[in-house]
Amino acid sequence: MKMVMAIVQDKDSNKVSAALAKAHVQATRFNSAGSFLRSGNTTFMIGTEDERVEEVIDIIQDTSHARKQFMTPPLNMDSIVDSGSSFPVEVEVGGATVFVMPIESFRHF
Amino acid sequence: MKMVMAIVQDKDSNKVSAALAKAHVQATRFNSAGSFLRSGNTTFMIGTEDERVEEVIDIIQDTSHARKQFMTPPLNMDSIVDSGSSFPVEVEVGGATVFVMPIESFRHF
Amino acid sequence: MKMVMAIVQDKDSNKVSAALAKAHVQATRFNSAGSFLRSGNTTFMIGTEDERVEEVIDIIQDTSHARKQFMTPPLNMDSIVDSGSSFPVEVEVGGATVFVMPIESFRHF
Ligand code: NI
Ligand code: NI
Ligand code: NI
Repeated sequence: MKMVMAIVQDKDSNKVSAALAKAHVQATRFNSAGSFLRSGNTTFMIGTEDERVEEVIDIIQDTSHARKQFMTPPLNMDSIVDSGSSFPVEVEVGGATVFVMPIESFRHF
Repeated sequence: MKMVMAIVQDKDSNKVSAALAKAHVQATRFNSAGSFLRSGNTTFMIGTEDERVEEVIDIIQDTSHARKQFMTPPLNMDSIVDSGSSFPVEVEVGGATVFVMPIESFRHF
Repeated sequence: MKMVMAIVQDKDSNKVSAALAKAHVQATRFNSAGSFLRSGNTTFMIGTEDERVEEVIDIIQDTSHARKQFMTPPLNMDSIVDSGSSFPVEVEVGGATVFVMPIESFRHF
């Protein structure tokens, strides 16, 4: 067995949870935080058969990988005076880090 | 040394803590949650000598294993009208999952 | 790669975070607690290259190891009557436990 530890952005954590549940992958969630004063993140701890490790990582990647998104920044007073509108800008969201570790034994009771 | 990671139901976590403390087993507790929208659970992280792994797992099993319990469900209005009482039903409570992982080195300072 | 799991006292956690960030060591923080009814602590999870494990442990040790500190205990009514002042006493603060575990693979996306 392997332990998959995955750190994902909070905004993606419900998508990750739902996708793991749909695939019948048991996971434990923790509230966590980066150390570089970024906003909170979520850590998933998943004990899984060796044969399913790639599938589990694929599910996490599909639902949390970094991607570009267009966001409309909030209006500020100066730009209202100038143009009356705010333009969408492209930002990167998401992104995940995954560690795979060995498990020597497993018990459920 | 081994790392014992144990996920137990919240309702059993104080019993598990107290039993580990009584056996002088140092543990670290985390609030956690299942991914299947179940209620919260508690994860214990325990670094221990190889010789004590079975004892630690036994303590966790004794204090958190799944068992049947009789519970009286809350009255609902229809059953009050019908019978005026509520009957105890048998439900399963508790249950734990334990992973044992290798530790390569340990420091305390 | 190795996984460094470090449990430090809450009062030292910001110092540890800042020192790791300054050394460009990525870490994930968790709120945690001891099982002996002590106050809360903070657990850091750090995946790092083998070559940096000792450096990471040194950073944690420098910023969280146990040390003596003089503290002025709060006045109590009897001692006010007796002497009108409170004397500083030496107490131990800080202290950390660190586990190093193997990582088999790592992904970032
Ligand atoms: Ni995509
Ligand atoms: Ni029993
Ligand atoms: Ni010092």
